Amino acid sequence: MSHWIRFRTEGRECFGTLRGGEALEHEGDMFGEARPTGRTHAAGSFALLSPCVPGKIVALWNNFHALASKLGKPVPAHPPFFIKSSSSVIGCDEPIRRPAGYTGKIVFEGELGIVIGKTCRHIGVSEAARFIFGYTCVNDVTAMDVLFENPDFAQWSRAKSFDTFGCLGPAIATGLDPGGVNLVTRVDGSERQNYPLMDMVFAPHELVSRISHDLTLLPGDVIACGTSIGVGSIKEGATVEISIDGIGTLRNKLVAGP
Amino acid sequence: MSHWIRFRTEGRECFGTLRGGEALEHEGDMFGEARPTGRTHAAGSFALLSPCVPGKIVALWNNFHALASKLGKPVPAHPPFFIKSSSSVIGCDEPIRRPAGYTGKIVFEGELGIVIGKTCRHIGVSEAARFIFGYTCVNDVTAMDVLFENPDFAQWSRAKSFDTFGCLGPAIATGLDPGGVNLVTRVDGSERQNYPLMDMVFAPHELVSRISHDLTLLPGDVIACGTSIGVGSIKEGATVEISIDGIGTLRNKLVAGP
Repeated sequence: MSHWIRFRTEGRECFGTLRGGEALEHEGDMFGEARPTGRTHAAGSFALLSPCVPGKIVALWNNFHALASKLGKPVPAHPPFFIKSSSSVIGCDEPIRRPAGYTGKIVFEGELGIVIGKTCRHIGVSEAARFIFGYTCVNDVTAMDVLFENPDFAQWSRAKSFDTFGCLGPAIATGLDPGGVNLVTRVDGSERQNYPLMDMVFAPHELVSRISHDLTLLPGDVIACGTSIGVGSIKEGATVEISIDGIGTLRNKLVAGP
Repeated sequence: MSHWIRFRTEGRECFGTLRGGEALEHEGDMFGEARPTGRTHAAGSFALLSPCVPGKIVALWNNFHALASKLGKPVPAHPPFFIKSSSSVIGCDEPIRRPAGYTGKIVFEGELGIVIGKTCRHIGVSEAARFIFGYTCVNDVTAMDVLFENPDFAQWSRAKSFDTFGCLGPAIATGLDPGGVNLVTRVDGSERQNYPLMDMVFAPHELVSRISHDLTLLPGDVIACGTSIGVGSIKEGATVEISIDGIGTLRNKLVAGP
């Protein structure tokens, strides 16, 4: 298992792997030929960036049995998704900023993120593993009062695409089977979500296959697998931590903004 | 007024301007420093590509008074949009392909597209012109039976993001005031839409300003301004032409696919 990161150090943007807290810088292409440069960066000497720069984020709605049951919604026949703008992306420890002029509820949603490694189109479930580079944590931040403010048109893309509302990280874990682990979300240290990733309606391989029949997925694209029960709102100053065993903890603080 | 295009010739992807039917190749950055190379390509010796490669397409719903009135919907207080995947983009004369396994209605929607020229965030209406590179024609193709197939979740992003469903072109016209012209859509030569762009609820400068407060717009991003009355479905073999005076005609044929 490797943990791939992007980071900034000495004014440069780099990528590489984590070993303990140390970053092993690489060169080339994270999704293609990547070679160690031999340079290492001690913990504390670099700042994490989002671990990839997705061209698009395909974000699922209603993909957990427990949440579907709580909402009284039937399980969907096909993965229902919206596109979350890539311009919303930030990495671990970067601040989530309240949109200018928006005074409503801001909600955290802890999710598993699938990071695509190779261009994929019309692939079968049994082939999907070859196209998945790895997994990361996602906080699919939402301006909840925007979502349903227009009674004729649910604004999924808009409510979730404000700058800084797409938190990804801290790293992309390769070689992980997310089926056996839980996702835990804490706000200021207190647990708010703790759900098994096994409870997905459409598991990662199925998602990649089905979505690749709808649109072409490209290296670095992220599928946010949807959230389960326990989402809630946060106030300025609150820190949200999303942890998945084998990946790590994505931590972001909501600040007044922008 | 210039007409910027991207095109393929002799196995290379190039960009430049149109003069008559001839392409004047440029080098550098279409949105930055672009210089003529001195090479010209005669009409018929190159194939058009989409005139830009958007990172995102921000697509409007309910942005024309005539259509709002026909649908009996109130005019929105803020531009309601969804994100259409950039992987859906094709250029003029490229085929629209029916998605695999989808046998339902495919609908054309003729729209004005705003092409962003500079990174913009939190800009005022009076500044918007500086951030607009130019205008193009958009066919916001839609798999209509997907849109409302899930009664709990309108699938705007999915129904409109199938590969080849984002037709852009033929060119990006700079120095155009789209307020005074009509958009005309023809299917196999017969007129289906003919509406004044002046009828927009939120005109281009207002759209760029408002949307730039929601998310950061980047060079090459496209805002599809929404359609008006006259949209309809097409069958395999039908050719859709979307014309705006001063821009040109975007032409795409629906074929069995993918």
